[in-house]
Amino acid sequence: MSEIYSKAETLELRRKHIGPSCKVFFAKDPIKIVRAQGQYMFDENGEKYLDCINNVAHVGHSHPEVVKAAVKQMELLNTNSRFLHDNLVQYAKRLTATLPEKLSVCYFVNSGSEANDLALRLARQYSGHQDVITLDHAYHGHVTSLIDISPYKFHQLGKEGKKEFVHVAPSPDIYRGKYRENHPDPASAYADDVKKITIEAQKNGRKIAAFIAESMQSCGGQVIPPAGYFQKVAEYVHKAGGVFIADEVQVGFGRVGKNFWGFQLQGEDFVPDIVTMGKPIGNGHPMSCVVTTREIAEAFGASGLEYFNTFGGNPVSCAIGLAVLDVIEKEDLQGNARRVGNHLIELLKEQQKKHPLVGDVRGVGLFVGVELVKDQQTRTPATAEAQHIIYKLKEQQTLLSADGPHRNILKFKPPMCFTMEDAKFVVDQIDTLLTGMHGSCTAGCSSLFTSTTIRNGGNSYAECVSESISHINGNACRQVNGFYTESHGVPCKRIRT
Amino acid sequence: MSEIYSKAETLELRRKHIGPSCKVFFAKDPIKIVRAQGQYMFDENGEKYLDCINNVAHVGHSHPEVVKAAVKQMELLNTNSRFLHDNLVQYAKRLTATLPEKLSVCYFVNSGSEANDLALRLARQYSGHQDVITLDHAYHGHVTSLIDISPYKFHQLGKEGKKEFVHVAPSPDIYRGKYRENHPDPASAYADDVKKITIEAQKNGRKIAAFIAESMQSCGGQVIPPAGYFQKVAEYVHKAGGVFIADEVQVGFGRVGKNFWGFQLQGEDFVPDIVTMGKPIGNGHPMSCVVTTREIAEAFGASGLEYFNTFGGNPVSCAIGLAVLDVIEKEDLQGNARRVGNHLIELLKEQQKKHPLVGDVRGVGLFVGVELVKDQQTRTPATAEAQHIIYKLKEQQTLLSADGPHRNILKFKPPMCFTMEDAKFVVDQIDTLLTGMHGSCTAGCSSLFTSTTIRNGGNSYAECVSESISHINGNACRQVNGFYTESHGVPCKRIRT
Repeated sequence: MSEIYSKAETLELRRKHIGPSCKVFFAKDPIKIVRAQGQYMFDENGEKYLDCINNVAHVGHSHPEVVKAAVKQMELLNTNSRFLHDNLVQYAKRLTATLPEKLSVCYFVNSGSEANDLALRLARQYSGHQDVITLDHAYHGHVTSLIDISPYKFHQLGKEGKKEFVHVAPSPDIYRGKYRENHPDPASAYADDVKKITIEAQKNGRKIAAFIAESMQSCGGQVIPPAGYFQKVAEYVHKAGGVFIADEVQVGFGRVGKNFWGFQLQGEDFVPDIVTMGKPIGNGHPMSCVVTTREIAEAFGASGLEYFNTFGGNPVSCAIGLAVLDVIEKEDLQGNARRVGNHLIELLKEQQKKHPLVGDVRGVGLFVGVELVKDQQTRTPATAEAQHIIYKLKEQQTLLSADGPHRNILKFKPPMCFTMEDAKFVVDQIDTLLTGMHGSCTAGCSSLFTSTTIRNGGNSYAECVSESISHINGNACRQVNGFYTESHGVPCKRIRT
Repeated sequence: MSEIYSKAETLELRRKHIGPSCKVFFAKDPIKIVRAQGQYMFDENGEKYLDCINNVAHVGHSHPEVVKAAVKQMELLNTNSRFLHDNLVQYAKRLTATLPEKLSVCYFVNSGSEANDLALRLARQYSGHQDVITLDHAYHGHVTSLIDISPYKFHQLGKEGKKEFVHVAPSPDIYRGKYRENHPDPASAYADDVKKITIEAQKNGRKIAAFIAESMQSCGGQVIPPAGYFQKVAEYVHKAGGVFIADEVQVGFGRVGKNFWGFQLQGEDFVPDIVTMGKPIGNGHPMSCVVTTREIAEAFGASGLEYFNTFGGNPVSCAIGLAVLDVIEKEDLQGNARRVGNHLIELLKEQQKKHPLVGDVRGVGLFVGVELVKDQQTRTPATAEAQHIIYKLKEQQTLLSADGPHRNILKFKPPMCFTMEDAKFVVDQIDTLLTGMHGSCTAGCSSLFTSTTIRNGGNSYAECVSESISHINGNACRQVNGFYTESHGVPCKRIRT
């Protein structure tokens, strides 16, 4: 490969010129990737890694059809959407055709953060209200307005983190949440909590503009809301004058297998008022979209403020977006996600029977979480063990991440071309690792790495997108310039991977 | 060309599927562009337009070197910055080398809006303060946090538009502003106004996090701050505990000719604390950057919050960024901007002598404004006349825009490959138009299109980036689905272009 710098030089330049808040994967020994194809990434020595985490490379890394479409359009024209262009309208037509009919109006932007910010603006203008209901542990983006509504981030800012206009509803997590799998109707119970928030807010003279939730919580811990929850929430939120925003930035575009959009898992009778898209939409190209109803779009337009986004909806982005849709269709990647996802979940469920560390296996399609616990009854998060596994897997050239509020959930969200063999391969690796951990230092480590340690670690939470694997053993490691230095005082050598 | 839809069909689909707040250029007869090369754009009939407005296509539309670099990298790898990659650090090294030494730490993002939002986060974290001083008529982006600090936008929202933490300083416009060209020291006078704001704020228990300004105001009306202004402002803002953010989104990357960055026009002794970049950085590819000092970057890191941007700093964006820097250098585009810009300004100054409508000609390099006035003494903005000219030029296949708070400033910001001949060509066209307007209906029109009419027009201000040419004759036209319909009650036919 055509390396310009040695890995050490790359690291040194990164320390010098890249913000220390920008973390790398596997900080103790970061990976330098020089090329990637399909579900594989290759480092500077040509070593091949199986990629189980890059949901952005949705149709596979460096997909030739996507590259071809990009090149063809780049050679012709790349300009803003103030000029008429066929790609823009053709893409909007194709994209809205994947959604329920009433979601017919698009705004093209450049990132999931821009999309969620615009969704809030739409909701506020339409409702005339300001307040937002968000789920606990939610992450919706890195711009100021979204950190405000992301408990995943603002919880780290101490007491002043939560603004008055933000209302946090419990995450509809039936494994670790408030209402669990043994509850007769967790969907209604969780929705009732949202209802209570709307009533309480109104009592305090506050007005709800929107409820926002990922169709399935990603950073929040691969949480799949019980079916029927969104319908009931939408009813209560509408009653309060607000709208329902479904954040599909992580989970859209066929990943869930059964449907094209994550929110559709709730049932055909559910349609959000606003849908935001991102990551996989352009297979890595910076693009994103907000889709809403004619009614909301017209209310937004009626403010008199124009909306112009310099790069949003440019012909190159739209050509790429179209190519991604084409490839999903041609290669039946949604079907593949369903088939391979089912297989992966089956294999992981076998692990659950075999290894007491595996507390829960949950997922749909190629969006799967494996929650590790120290004890099946108390469900104490096995955070250090999860970190151990992802570090060991990395040594074995498989990329996996751990996320969730306790960072104890192994998280699968591979490129959609992931195969049955890939699924078998990674689960076998995990099996071997779990087997090796039985009766070794696990018990000793458990007491050292409690979730409290992790939570108070200062640098403990990871910026979302499940890249939390840059964190090592909670507060046991110190940061310098965005790189974790040697962990200090970690008594269990086996965990120091 | 490979048109999929007729222009009418494209329009119809756009009405159906694109948010009505997203406006098109020349709404009465929008242009469909299918390809572009250098400083020329071509419509669906192969008609060629001279492009005087697209500063995003910085090194020229569809530049082959930029496309080549993009393709080469897209075929290899496009992934996030959690993996080490040479392009990221090489680009950061090259980019910071164009800046004063203390500006050494980069954050790569996707748009000018993301950049300015992050700049505010950096400033707030570093200073521990919240308040922001912004210039009147400023536009800094479309996300919630930036509309808050953009008078260009929030003035349209009525009394409640301005938040308490926002302080508006007068725009340092020596032609139309508070202190004019006849003032002995406008730089000090404008800076003193900022000083007063900091003192007043402190009296009210408020604390300044940042002063933000474009190095030259673009939407604000091609305003070139008098040299020495930034130095003094920085002194007062630092004293108040805040930082200086130079927004180079519109004007950076050699456009001003004499220097690579707009803020450098203030003198070598001025260095901002944070610089934001955007539009031209990737010649149309969605990318952007914030550069700051080690001290600010470390304070931001110390918060414990990570900063992760999914697409920001990906190897494709960085490869494109590097190619843009290469082309600027290889083709001496900064030198070209200086030479052609000087020529353009000279030609326009001749127009000023010849036509009483031309009140002021100002600019540096290929960032030039021509302010049209009804009267040289009163300086009453000649808004309708400016709109007339850009519509007539469009008929003659030259793309120019009009901007500023009164939309009476003809605004030049062409691709940097603009030639002497192009300059002569467009100025000749303007000359002919201005000549044709002498003694015709100009006087009659003047009274019909006062700046007040424009200001109160509801849809009168344009979203920035100087694309205000979608607005026709102030409030004389009604909007339907983002398209201006026929203007009603415009008595002067000659203006209805």
